[in-house]
Amino acid sequence: MRTIFKTVLAVFVSISSSSLFAQHKDFTQFVNPYIGSAGHGHVFVGANVPNGAVQLGPSQISQTWDKFNGWDWCSGYNYKSEEILGFTHTHLSGTGIGDLNDILILPANGKQHIQQAPFNKMNEGYGSKISKQNESVSPGYYKVLLEDYNILAELTSSERVGYHKYTFNKKDNPHLVIDLSFKMNWDKPTETYLKLVNDSTIVGYRFSTGWANDQKVYFAIKSNTKFKKVDFYNDSTAVLGYHVAKGQNIKAILAIDPTNPVELKVGLSPVSTKNALENIATEIPYWDFETAKNKAKEKWNDVLGKIDFKADDNTKTIFYTAFYHSYFAPTIFSDVNGDYMGTDKQVYNDKQHQNYTVFSLWDTYRALHPLMTILEDKKSKDFVSSMLKIYQQQGKLPVWHLWANETNTMVGLPAIPVIADAILKGIIDENEIELAYEAIKSTAMGHDNGLKYVRDLKHIPIEHMDHESVAWALEYAIADFGAYQAAKFLGKTTDAEYFEKRYKLYEQYFDQEMGHFVGRHENGNFRRPFDPLMAKHRANDYCEGNAWQYTWLVPQDVHGLISLFGGDKQFLKKLDEFIALPEHLDDASPDISGMIGQYAQGNEPNHHVPYLYAYAGEQWKGAALVHKAMTKYYTNEPAGLCGNDDAGQMSAWYVFSSMGIYPANPMDGKYIFGSPLMEEASIQLPNGKTFHIKVKNYGKNNIYVNKATLNGKNHSNTYITHNDILNGGELIFEMSAKPNKKFGANKTFRP
Amino acid sequence: MRTIFKTVLAVFVSISSSSLFAQHKDFTQFVNPYIGSAGHGHVFVGANVPNGAVQLGPSQISQTWDKFNGWDWCSGYNYKSEEILGFTHTHLSGTGIGDLNDILILPANGKQHIQQAPFNKMNEGYGSKISKQNESVSPGYYKVLLEDYNILAELTSSERVGYHKYTFNKKDNPHLVIDLSFKMNWDKPTETYLKLVNDSTIVGYRFSTGWANDQKVYFAIKSNTKFKKVDFYNDSTAVLGYHVAKGQNIKAILAIDPTNPVELKVGLSPVSTKNALENIATEIPYWDFETAKNKAKEKWNDVLGKIDFKADDNTKTIFYTAFYHSYFAPTIFSDVNGDYMGTDKQVYNDKQHQNYTVFSLWDTYRALHPLMTILEDKKSKDFVSSMLKIYQQQGKLPVWHLWANETNTMVGLPAIPVIADAILKGIIDENEIELAYEAIKSTAMGHDNGLKYVRDLKHIPIEHMDHESVAWALEYAIADFGAYQAAKFLGKTTDAEYFEKRYKLYEQYFDQEMGHFVGRHENGNFRRPFDPLMAKHRANDYCEGNAWQYTWLVPQDVHGLISLFGGDKQFLKKLDEFIALPEHLDDASPDISGMIGQYAQGNEPNHHVPYLYAYAGEQWKGAALVHKAMTKYYTNEPAGLCGNDDAGQMSAWYVFSSMGIYPANPMDGKYIFGSPLMEEASIQLPNGKTFHIKVKNYGKNNIYVNKATLNGKNHSNTYITHNDILNGGELIFEMSAKPNKKFGANKTFRP
Repeated sequence: MRTIFKTVLAVFVSISSSSLFAQHKDFTQFVNPYIGSAGHGHVFVGANVPNGAVQLGPSQISQTWDKFNGWDWCSGYNYKSEEILGFTHTHLSGTGIGDLNDILILPANGKQHIQQAPFNKMNEGYGSKISKQNESVSPGYYKVLLEDYNILAELTSSERVGYHKYTFNKKDNPHLVIDLSFKMNWDKPTETYLKLVNDSTIVGYRFSTGWANDQKVYFAIKSNTKFKKVDFYNDSTAVLGYHVAKGQNIKAILAIDPTNPVELKVGLSPVSTKNALENIATEIPYWDFETAKNKAKEKWNDVLGKIDFKADDNTKTIFYTAFYHSYFAPTIFSDVNGDYMGTDKQVYNDKQHQNYTVFSLWDTYRALHPLMTILEDKKSKDFVSSMLKIYQQQGKLPVWHLWANETNTMVGLPAIPVIADAILKGIIDENEIELAYEAIKSTAMGHDNGLKYVRDLKHIPIEHMDHESVAWALEYAIADFGAYQAAKFLGKTTDAEYFEKRYKLYEQYFDQEMGHFVGRHENGNFRRPFDPLMAKHRANDYCEGNAWQYTWLVPQDVHGLISLFGGDKQFLKKLDEFIALPEHLDDASPDISGMIGQYAQGNEPNHHVPYLYAYAGEQWKGAALVHKAMTKYYTNEPAGLCGNDDAGQMSAWYVFSSMGIYPANPMDGKYIFGSPLMEEASIQLPNGKTFHIKVKNYGKNNIYVNKATLNGKNHSNTYITHNDILNGGELIFEMSAKPNKKFGANKTFRP
Repeated sequence: MRTIFKTVLAVFVSISSSSLFAQHKDFTQFVNPYIGSAGHGHVFVGANVPNGAVQLGPSQISQTWDKFNGWDWCSGYNYKSEEILGFTHTHLSGTGIGDLNDILILPANGKQHIQQAPFNKMNEGYGSKISKQNESVSPGYYKVLLEDYNILAELTSSERVGYHKYTFNKKDNPHLVIDLSFKMNWDKPTETYLKLVNDSTIVGYRFSTGWANDQKVYFAIKSNTKFKKVDFYNDSTAVLGYHVAKGQNIKAILAIDPTNPVELKVGLSPVSTKNALENIATEIPYWDFETAKNKAKEKWNDVLGKIDFKADDNTKTIFYTAFYHSYFAPTIFSDVNGDYMGTDKQVYNDKQHQNYTVFSLWDTYRALHPLMTILEDKKSKDFVSSMLKIYQQQGKLPVWHLWANETNTMVGLPAIPVIADAILKGIIDENEIELAYEAIKSTAMGHDNGLKYVRDLKHIPIEHMDHESVAWALEYAIADFGAYQAAKFLGKTTDAEYFEKRYKLYEQYFDQEMGHFVGRHENGNFRRPFDPLMAKHRANDYCEGNAWQYTWLVPQDVHGLISLFGGDKQFLKKLDEFIALPEHLDDASPDISGMIGQYAQGNEPNHHVPYLYAYAGEQWKGAALVHKAMTKYYTNEPAGLCGNDDAGQMSAWYVFSSMGIYPANPMDGKYIFGSPLMEEASIQLPNGKTFHIKVKNYGKNNIYVNKATLNGKNHSNTYITHNDILNGGELIFEMSAKPNKKFGANKTFRP
């Protein structure tokens, strides 16, 4: 019987696979890649495929004289820029620290420049003005007219290969500029290398320091036309007589014949130029830009089609763009043959698991990774496997992993929630479970950044950590819940008991007098004077936030938090007060943005806050708050993100929230109800099933959940579980313009 | 017939192979590894095998306050030191710039120290006093008593694995120190890494900058006893809680049980810790120090046995030590699986050719490489192949290659003579010949360091190169002869004609007024004022020398040089004058040493000079000079080398000269007669044949060649050819105390 069942299931899977499903509809049409490209969104704009290593797009001039000292060019692009210096093959999306923008190529003509143009003096260096009306971008495709050269540049990509097509409308001294010295933001080249392999192939590498302390990118460039002349430079000095150039600032000018459009395929590798060539040969063996472009679009359609989201066009665009941005990180970090670079500076090969990097975990453990546990079985496993390899190489789980470098950015141990969740949800290879637990425990048992106090079940004194101690401690407690859950799940009773104590350590910081989490002295006294609104960056006990914003950061034990306040009533009062406070912030990090009272949609520590209402029996208030956050701070315009997209976390929050559910605690398999923004969402699951969420009485003002049914039965809980989703079926929200205050009021039905 | 002949030959080869031959005799007993370890010899003292990657030996305290600012610790060891800080796994031998001394390990007891002891304060840090009477060294084996710890340390090695044996006579708090921050000379760690793999295995890497700008050494340590406790440090700060430590100055203290001798096997790899482990598993899979030690000795006996050299014990010791030192470089630079690191920072695999590094070519092209063309067919091919790979990776042939780095040390293009000689002698794989010629030509057609003038057949003006221009030009002319020879041999007539002009360019520097090579202005005028004795370092037109020493540097065209002087008579007069000048040098580089008049045996530009007499018909005078140089400047004592051994070139000079022959022009296959110091030398050739050199009337004062016979026939030439040697046979020198001035006087018989 079992066997027969499996066979039947397999057929079912193949029929309903997202790939087939996607053929019917073009979901990419609903994506507006400009959303989040203005202001502080910092999203990447260009051509990539889902989780692709290559993110091929324009690099502009970082306007370091602006108010934020060039911060808004972290991705290399900002909507307000009106020039392009060249096209680079790697970018970060939505981060608050800049790096990458590696391997710049620019098609040009006229006077040869080997130095980039300064701002507003485009004729003094390479680069061109552009106009927004001559620029367009869609999933997997970017097009722009370089006006100073009258060259139409088109870009597409596969996972590891960027594909350029340059149509020269002006043909005076046509050439390509390759500038390995090109850098943006914190990045600085340390050693660069170019080698002419033959008259249409160049390979090289770019090593750099910056946010990634020691980043290595190997690449190969194949051209559809022969180079008529190749000149190498180190900075501005010609490198004569050799087919190889090595130095800190290697560049090349390649004279080419522009009779036909010039096409380039650029393969990247973390390991070698040989692998970069193999990546090209495997992923884009042909010369056919249209085919490459269509394949990229198909890949996007495959993933975007995993959720068939029905709503008004505007919301649909915001949704699919958020969904699109949810696939910008982590990014592939290995070659087609399985080679990758370890954080221990060695080349490894793994053919079983795709290796990844760009783990912005403090952001993404909250919603992006939970989203992937629903949609992406294999990818989620590979993310975990990648993190476990990093653990083996660097002795602890990643914090913020960037191209084989641990940047140690942000606070806490944010890989633990992801790994613990994967263990609990069974999204991990059997043979990696013990290693995963070892990694969690070893990492949690470290000594640095106050962990030595946590080990001993003590508070982290502010004498030891003069700022951010509460933020570290609260994040540790979240991770410790993951360790507790994993230990319990795996039957490690002693460990479970120990980590249960640790995830409760947040209680030590609760200052009853103030009603906030407050930093503590060695002697146990709370910090005085105390200002719960003070949000000065790196000057208080929080991290990108103030006491008000951090007071809710106990997603792992909301009922415990409620108890600290003395019960639902006091807790709800405080929450209401939080939302009602003035939006003003003095001298704060620009990361704290998207304000509703002191609630900050623009930064991660608050992302679960609207859903806390449900824990205290007032789901309807959460619905109102989440509705406001979604509609006020997610809009269909370049400035449509209220803060850094943070490698997709801001977007993944929207993907969940707009469907009416959110994993407030990302380690207990519950998705709390909020306020759906759509008529219907069909989620294609990796097991072949579909989970439908339907909304009755969908309407602009019908923001409250009046009642819900699951698979036709009344569903009084204000949440569903991961298994509810995996089983497939239908959740129906019945909405109303007035709150049904009874919905979820009873303790039995709360999360 | 051919087939049968081949079979017969193969049997013959196998019977007469050096390995069998070596079983009969122990040649290692004649080696005194201390020769060259005092003063400026700078030889490595410790345990290695021929051309082994691992050179495992003591590192001492560089006495930077001595007259030469610590220069005499370039290898890490100087005979005068009476302490040891630890045992490191890589060293340079005989160089004038210091580096390596990687991966320090020290067995210790008593108080734990994590910082090295300062000079003369051994109790303030790790390290121990030693006494010469408690130290001994022989090929492949080193032993010392660490007196402060009463620990007997013994070392041996294979190609890629160092084997330590520590007998603890004192057992108070026994531990091992691993210090990756340890550095000597110019070296500085940039990133170091340790990882505890299990209770008896540690892996790691040490990246450093220095002479090798970006050196990477990966390693694995396996212990025969479990580590009882492992403490990691970064500098002096404990790294707690993790099994991995990464930082600039990572160290470890390993507590061990010393009941039985503690044994460690340390594998190195240029590529990965995995390969380092594989190197151990392949090369020394067992725990048996004696076996490892005997194997190392056998390997030395195999190569030392290639020349059965009969002479008085003292000369024999000097000879076999010189021969031993001829196998200290180049060193193996790849793993047992064929992986190696390219100069383009990528991992390659070559299973066909052993890859090498430590190419000190300005030194070794003169005699060491020619010696290897006689004795080591496979190795010579592999040296060439390694250099060609470097060419492909860095765009030009190596100058001074050190662990995947081009150091660009010294002048000229010194790989070209080696490669050209290999082409002419057929010691190169057929399929590499075209690449080899491309590499020669591309390298010779560079632009840097005055080459752009040479390309145009012009002199290098001193306005362009304010010092060393004559040295560069003369070395270029030597390399150009190689290019000429290779082009001619390969039928590239146009190139041959061009390079023939280039190798004659030395003529342009000959100042008839002064009778010397002199730097020239752009307008052609020779530099004035001019002092032919001025030898100030980097302040004249020569490199480590003065005009007198450089006036002979035309080994490629000695007859052309003679013509410049106006004929044999004037040439000989000048040579006599050179030898008769006072030995005094003002303000000169310490590299200029071993003086006989202004002749400097201690530096390479003069190494061929004694043999120039033969070209002008007075071989007997050359015999007298070479005899004097050999007996005065090569002695059986620690200070027995008159200058840096220069990666074996000083030693290889002796190996040839003591047998009575020398490749004055290392690219024409001629070996010029000097003055044999021995009774007999039997040279085992890779083709299975033997070439015997016998000396009749061998005696202390019988320094002149009266006559010679080759294979029983009178041999009037004052040289033999490479083919004479390869054919096997017997060269007999008949010696006398009085010169036979007719021998080689006739032009017909001169080289």
